[in-house]
Amino acid sequence: MLHENLGVNEKGHLTFAGADVVTLAEKYGTPLMLLDEMRIRKTIRTYKQALEENFGAGSYPLFASKALCFKGIYRLAAEEGIGIDTVSVGEIYTAKAAGFDLKKAYFHGNNKTDADIRYAVENGVGTFVVDNEDELRALESYLAAAGKKQDILLRITPGIDPHTHKAIVTGSVDSKFGSAIETGQAEGITRLALSLPHIVLKGFHCHVGSQIFDIDPFTEAADIMLRFIAYIAANTGYTAEVLNLGGGLGVKYVEGQPVLDYAAVIREMAAVIKLRAAEIGCALPHILLEPGRSLVADAGITLYTVGSVKTITGYKSYVSVDGGMPDNPRYALYEAPYTVLLASKADAPSDFKCSVVGRCCESGDILQENVTLPKPVRGDILAVLCTGAYNYAMASNYNRIPRPAVVWVNEGADTLAIRRETYEDMTRLEV
Amino acid sequence: MLHENLGVNEKGHLTFAGADVVTLAEKYGTPLMLLDEMRIRKTIRTYKQALEENFGAGSYPLFASKALCFKGIYRLAAEEGIGIDTVSVGEIYTAKAAGFDLKKAYFHGNNKTDADIRYAVENGVGTFVVDNEDELRALESYLAAAGKKQDILLRITPGIDPHTHKAIVTGSVDSKFGSAIETGQAEGITRLALSLPHIVLKGFHCHVGSQIFDIDPFTEAADIMLRFIAYIAANTGYTAEVLNLGGGLGVKYVEGQPVLDYAAVIREMAAVIKLRAAEIGCALPHILLEPGRSLVADAGITLYTVGSVKTITGYKSYVSVDGGMPDNPRYALYEAPYTVLLASKADAPSDFKCSVVGRCCESGDILQENVTLPKPVRGDILAVLCTGAYNYAMASNYNRIPRPAVVWVNEGADTLAIRRETYEDMTRLEV
Repeated sequence: MLHENLGVNEKGHLTFAGADVVTLAEKYGTPLMLLDEMRIRKTIRTYKQALEENFGAGSYPLFASKALCFKGIYRLAAEEGIGIDTVSVGEIYTAKAAGFDLKKAYFHGNNKTDADIRYAVENGVGTFVVDNEDELRALESYLAAAGKKQDILLRITPGIDPHTHKAIVTGSVDSKFGSAIETGQAEGITRLALSLPHIVLKGFHCHVGSQIFDIDPFTEAADIMLRFIAYIAANTGYTAEVLNLGGGLGVKYVEGQPVLDYAAVIREMAAVIKLRAAEIGCALPHILLEPGRSLVADAGITLYTVGSVKTITGYKSYVSVDGGMPDNPRYALYEAPYTVLLASKADAPSDFKCSVVGRCCESGDILQENVTLPKPVRGDILAVLCTGAYNYAMASNYNRIPRPAVVWVNEGADTLAIRRETYEDMTRLEV
Repeated sequence: MLHENLGVNEKGHLTFAGADVVTLAEKYGTPLMLLDEMRIRKTIRTYKQALEENFGAGSYPLFASKALCFKGIYRLAAEEGIGIDTVSVGEIYTAKAAGFDLKKAYFHGNNKTDADIRYAVENGVGTFVVDNEDELRALESYLAAAGKKQDILLRITPGIDPHTHKAIVTGSVDSKFGSAIETGQAEGITRLALSLPHIVLKGFHCHVGSQIFDIDPFTEAADIMLRFIAYIAANTGYTAEVLNLGGGLGVKYVEGQPVLDYAAVIREMAAVIKLRAAEIGCALPHILLEPGRSLVADAGITLYTVGSVKTITGYKSYVSVDGGMPDNPRYALYEAPYTVLLASKADAPSDFKCSVVGRCCESGDILQENVTLPKPVRGDILAVLCTGAYNYAMASNYNRIPRPAVVWVNEGADTLAIRRETYEDMTRLEV
């Protein structure tokens, strides 16, 4: 099994977090997303403990909530005592509605509107991660009028290419995010921030990419950022308190990918980063990390009911399910790999090669190609694994398909987290 | 200007369907989608008249409503007296809520669930477009139990490759849609349909692809389908009454693409198809077409407010707007081309080369690369043209961004069609 929260019971059904998923599919209907609550809590604790142990108090994780945003996940983040990375007023609103203390919220994004700035300051968001000069000036202008001060980090592009998918590479210089060190623009925006009376610069942020399985991109980025911090200290007298290294640690979606031991990875990172800091002669700032995918991806699975099964003589077979790109657009967007299991016959031999496709009237609505399953029939339950990140968060109503229900599973016990969207819900904005 | 419903007024503002778009952006906020009502009505009338004149009464267009689904568009389809192509219960529900007569609805899709079949039959959907044997048997089984009969078309894959984007090629044999002629499966499903007592076979459907600018893929598909109809007639005695050739006629998104004269295209198609039918010795069935994109794409534009404008020294410039892939994922999905204008300075010289990017925390959130505009500043209004199809229909809440408002513009007069989604709306499903 791909992850340790998966198993097969005596009925031959897939189990997830201690629950028979076929039973849950019958109870809640499909498509259905299940979330393993304890797995998320344990991964959060791993990150939290490793950062504190290796980098000291003041170093902690922020949940990159764009990976999975709903009220329940912010309640859980609050209970576990971590911060959150938010990217919009919508996320801040949701966190607030869940009772999350916004002092621990960091507000990201390459394009905060004037209305966004006002909302975030008025609601006490702890730290802005300022992307660019236009935003910095707009923020200062609002703060001056409001007579307030605001803690910020500046987003810097260190110039790292982690050799990952183009769409999720964000640390390189030619990016819509941040200010680059090598062009001198990072220094420029730092000097500007230091000159503005209502801006309290706490440090710097960078983000190197996604689905990264080794520590080199992080330690290289840290090295570049520490040199930048030392340069700024030498030239302006300003010493950064915080270095936020972003997110990006990888998750096992398919066999052949490793399961990262995040505690070990952070320990190794810390060893290298402390050494570099000593070499550079830079006091080690507090280190923040922003795990999103790695906190929730493998704590989620999606269940579908099989509909038509079609073999095109001489070509291939298609298994259609009752969801698809509306609830999981990641194959359509990135040809993202996923592991697919026949949950209702999880112990049967897999000898049926097929494409698993969605129900949308669009050829690109594919969940996965080249899947081998026990041959399914109409009514079987199929599971796509590792869907906790960037599935519900990216869901649409394309083809007017309602969004699935989301259910917490906690050591076998299930509770509704997000109710299934209805047809009435989908038309309620329409005149 | 790309289309004749666009202009520039004395203030240097872009006009659309007779309205100053900057005024509408101020009135309704941004992101904002505008729909030119008269343009949609005129294109519908062009299709309707051309099909009737060239193929006779009983030949008519169906609006492929997956391109843009909301209550108002079904009201308009009802007023213009055309049919609709629907792909889900969600679309059927919306059409019904708008008062559309479901006898004129065709129910498509590669994977209709048992619940979908029940809903569609109970609500009187006129015609099922049956995709595959599993569906046909499930439909017959339901009808037998309910004691009802149902008109259907069978979806057939003629084996045409219109040399268009892979994700939107659907007429080729290796497809999740339909039954192929060349494998014998089309004949098999036809004989099965004819043998089932509650199924009333009215004819056949095929669909060759999207964004097609010449008639050859359609006439070739028609030729293959007419030969199939003749073969079935000779071997079973069954003569199809209806041949539905699907959708796919192209729309001008950018300079260099043609503006199709749909009346002329249908006239040319008809001449070739009638000739082929006579050669084959097949009585000409009623011809249906399913325009989606070509009815609504160029009747829509999206307005955004410019936020940060960033020039990376030695690289390029980025203009960030207050929407992006949540309201228009088509660049992220297909690298779809769009024309972008600076609506608030539409008469200024264009000399600023940039990428126009969205506000999501995702590098792939790009609206268009290599755009040349008058240099924008924070607060300017930017327009992306030709967004009426597959934008609102594909919109998500990724990064928890609310969906935009949609406004009808009718010869200068504006009325709300879909209200802007609120933060409350986005959290209402959550426990």
